[in-house]
Formats: sequence, structure tokens, C-alpha cells
Amino acid sequence: VAVYTDVPAEELDAFLARYEIGKLLSYKGIAEGVQNSNFLLHTDAGFFILTLYERLVEVADIPFFIGLMEHLALRGINCPQPVRMRDGNTLGDLCGRAAAIVTFLDGVWMRRVEPRHCIAVGEALAKLHLAGADFKGHRDNALSATKLRPLFESCADRIDHADLFPDNVFFLGERLSGLIDFYFACNDMFAYDVAICLNAWCFENDHSYNVTKGRALLQAYARVRPLTDDELTAMPLLARGAALRFLATRVVDWLNVPPGALVRPKAPQEYFRKLRFHQHVTSVDDYGIKARELA
Amino acid sequence: VAVYTDVPAEELDAFLARYEIGKLLSYKGIAEGVQNSNFLLHTDAGFFILTLYERLVEVADIPFFIGLMEHLALRGINCPQPVRMRDGNTLGDLCGRAAAIVTFLDGVWMRRVEPRHCIAVGEALAKLHLAGADFKGHRDNALSATKLRPLFESCADRIDHADLFPDNVFFLGERLSGLIDFYFACNDMFAYDVAICLNAWCFENDHSYNVTKGRALLQAYARVRPLTDDELTAMPLLARGAALRFLATRVVDWLNVPPGALVRPKAPQEYFRKLRFHQHVTSVDDYGIKARELA
Repeated sequence: VAVYTDVPAEELDAFLARYEIGKLLSYKGIAEGVQNSNFLLHTDAGFFILTLYERLVEVADIPFFIGLMEHLALRGINCPQPVRMRDGNTLGDLCGRAAAIVTFLDGVWMRRVEPRHCIAVGEALAKLHLAGADFKGHRDNALSATKLRPLFESCADRIDHADLFPDNVFFLGERLSGLIDFYFACNDMFAYDVAICLNAWCFENDHSYNVTKGRALLQAYARVRPLTDDELTAMPLLARGAALRFLATRVVDWLNVPPGALVRPKAPQEYFRKLRFHQHVTSVDDYGIKARELA
Repeated sequence: VAVYTDVPAEELDAFLARYEIGKLLSYKGIAEGVQNSNFLLHTDAGFFILTLYERLVEVADIPFFIGLMEHLALRGINCPQPVRMRDGNTLGDLCGRAAAIVTFLDGVWMRRVEPRHCIAVGEALAKLHLAGADFKGHRDNALSATKLRPLFESCADRIDHADLFPDNVFFLGERLSGLIDFYFACNDMFAYDVAICLNAWCFENDHSYNVTKGRALLQAYARVRPLTDDELTAMPLLARGAALRFLATRVVDWLNVPPGALVRPKAPQEYFRKLRFHQHVTSVDDYGIKARELA
């Protein structure tokens, strides 16, 4: 079995001794994460996800993400929880990689997105934004038209996982049950997250924009957290930026599949089509809803 | 996420309605099986393994394997158990593939094999042989020197998974806790299974034979099920045949990795070295134990 990093049971046993989650009963490499190695663990204490971070660049950000996950959970957001070691740490070393364990979250992601899922995601994203607003890593909102470009550029290398994509949103029956893998750093660029979700949830398989889904998502978001005038003005540009950003990274990922990759990167083509759509959008009205209904 | 077959939650929900294992809570594609798609399922009733059979040729054998697993479990062998649908079937159709659900087995496989593991495996294999002996798919033992070649050839296309390899044997602490994926058809060629285990468990990372491990495995096997004179005579030839067979299929697998493969095939080179070793073995004594101790 080839995963990015094969973890011998013997080493995992020793690693788990640093935690208070009992003995290892089983673990399986799971097909999630293009750049990380992920394992589903079963111990005496239940099920967990073990992640080995393969890219050094990410490791510096891990304490931030872990802190954020703890912060959000305290505010009622259902997301994986970092498990602390006996010494209080949440980040260790396993097989020469940075490694962390988080709690296992039930739920399945929807391959066939319907408007009701867009409503649930819009609402969940807004709640996430409100819950994260007082996280101490917070920066002042600088979302004015003149500051947008430098802000966007300053964030560009940090928002590597800023994707509340369908495969990161879990449902149980009709209910949105949890969010995973939403590693976002620029948490004051709320509208950019909304733009990403518009891209990820509101297009059809043929990459045409679905106005019913877009309206549903924006409306549900704004009911929980009304959008500011600046955010509404910037939305088409942000949506274009989001499409461009995913187009760029998907092309790079597509051309750089590591040997032994557990998952194949997503095809980049769809973001060409989405980008083209956003280029013809002149105001948020073109997404299917009047700006005044969102403010 | 790319697996051989991506199973939409919506279709899996419908598939599970045919079973009595409750509602789907989550499922993860797992990095096991080069040719099949495997998923770890969580339902109201617990954890299960879902397998989608990708190769049509295997489908005809599935009822045999499923029957065998049920037979062995009734005789105390700890192996995955096929879960029956409400209508009694164990094989269904999901995403256009033959699909079966088996129970989830705890345990981890040993990357660093020690002699004590070889003892456990030898014993487990012998118990498996005894438990399987009265399975109705049984054929008379035709293991005489003259019949070996045609028998070997007749079995060659059926023993596609005849591997009690380290990654198919689970341990919990010191105890061998279960066996998985031991799809073997020629269950009267017991000595051939022993020869496969010799190849899989008793060589070092540098592919040199470890006489301590070989002796441990053979001795433990024979304590549970003594080997016949014919089996002992044939052992070096069977070991050579086993090495040759795995060399051949590994080369084929190595050259035919399907696109989107979740796991990479094992490197074939090690079986060159093993084959060369067996070619110099003249009797079972060369494996580190006198034949009379095994009879």
C-alpha cells in the first residue's frame, strides 16, 4: 500500500502513547487530501483523523488553524477538534512529518448539490464568520475598493485551503452536520469566502451558473450576517478573483501530481468557464438577487 | 477525490436501504486493494467495509469467497463477515459495479515482522486450513509429484489473491486478531499456501532468507496441522512456484497501473531474489528445520 507516507503500526503506537486516547485498534489510509496523508484511526476512545503534513510551508500555519478550530468549536461550530497530547501540544512528529490528530466527524458530502444545500451552506458560512470574528488572529477589515488588490495579493499565499467546497461540508439527512478542512487565514475577507462558495456550489455540471442556487446561498448568508455595501460592490471582482485563483492552483496541481498520490487533483477546466461567467457580471444583481436584499 | 469508482452519497443511501444496518453516517475511500474500490462505512449499526469489484472476472468467484468467509467464521476463524441484505443476498449492484459489505475488523498489520509474528501466522494458517477443509467447495488433495504441474496450472488463474501477506494479517498487541482478503480457491493445496507464507514472511528487507523466521513459521504450522510426506517433498518446488507466480503478477501489475489508482502496486524486484534463493533449496531442511519435525 502506497500512501504519501506509510506509517508503520509500531511508530503509530509510540506516537499515540503521547495522547490519552487509549490503544491503537486499527487505522486506514483514507483518500482525502491531495498534499497531506490522512488516516482514520480507531482507538479505545473512538475514531479520529490523523493528518501528516507533507509540505513544510504548511507547518508554520498549523498552530493558527488548530487554534481557530478550537475557537470555533467553543462557539458551537461543528468542526473537527484537535486532540491535545498529555503535554498540551496538538502538533507532534511522526515518521519525520508534522502530525496532528483531530476528532472524527460523521456526515457525507453531497455530489448532487440542490438549492436546499446552498441555503444550508450560506447559513453555515455566515455563522462561521460570526463565530470566527473574535478569534485573536483577526485583522481589521480593509475591504475597500482601493485596498482590495494588495489585500488579495497579501492573502493569496495563505488561502491555500480557503475552500468550503462541497466535499468539505457534511450532511446527515437534511441537516448540515459539520465542516471540515476549512483552512482559511484571511478571516476578515468574509466576502471572499462567499465568492468562493458561489463558485463551488452554484454552478451546474456543465459549468453554467444556476441563479436559483446563487440566490439561495446569498440570501441564506445575509439572513445571518448582512453584507456591507463595500462587500456587495466587491462581490463580482472577488468571484472573478476566486475563479482565477482556483484555476491557477488547479493547473499547478494538475501538472504536479506527486508519485504515489492517493487522490488525483480536480480538473481545472471548470474554472475557465466560471471565470468567463464572472467576467460578464456587472453587479451582484447578476447573481440573481438585488443587493438591497442582502444588506 | 478520485477513487476507481466514486460513490455518491445519494446512491450509497439507496444501496444501504437493502440492508438492515441502519442509516449511513459517513464513509471514506480507503487505500486498500489495487484493483477494487474499498470504503470504510459508518452506519447506525457500526463500522463496515464496502467493496466495489472493478474486474468482471472476479465477480463470478465472489459467491465462493463469501460462502467461504461465512463457513470459516462459523468455525471460529476471525475474518470479515459478509453482511446479508434483507433478501438474503450478499452481492449487490452499486454504481454499475458488483458490491458487497463485510464486517469491519480491528487490528493493524506489522511492517516489521519478527519471529513471533511468524509463529502466529503459521498457527493461524494451519487453523484456517483445518477450518476450511470441510467447505463444500473442497476438492480432493491431488498433491502428488506427477500431478503437481497440472494442478498448479489449473489453479494459477484462481489464486489471484492467495496471499496471507503481512498486510492481510492483523495483530492487536501480541495477539493475531484477524485475517482479511485471503481469497484463495485451491483450498486443498495447503502446502502451496505455506510456501506463499514462507515467501511473504520469512525474508528480510534485503530479500535474504531468515532461517529463524522460516523455522518458526513451519514449526508453528505443523504443530496444528502436520505436513504430509508429499507436501514436504514438494515444498521447495511450491516455494519456487509461489515466488515465480508473484514475480509474474507483480510485473504485470507494475506495468498496468490504472489511472486514478488509489494504491501503487508492490515492486516486483524482491521476488527475483526470493526465486533465486528457492532455486538453490534442495529439501525442506534448507528452510531451517528437519522434515521429520514437521510431519
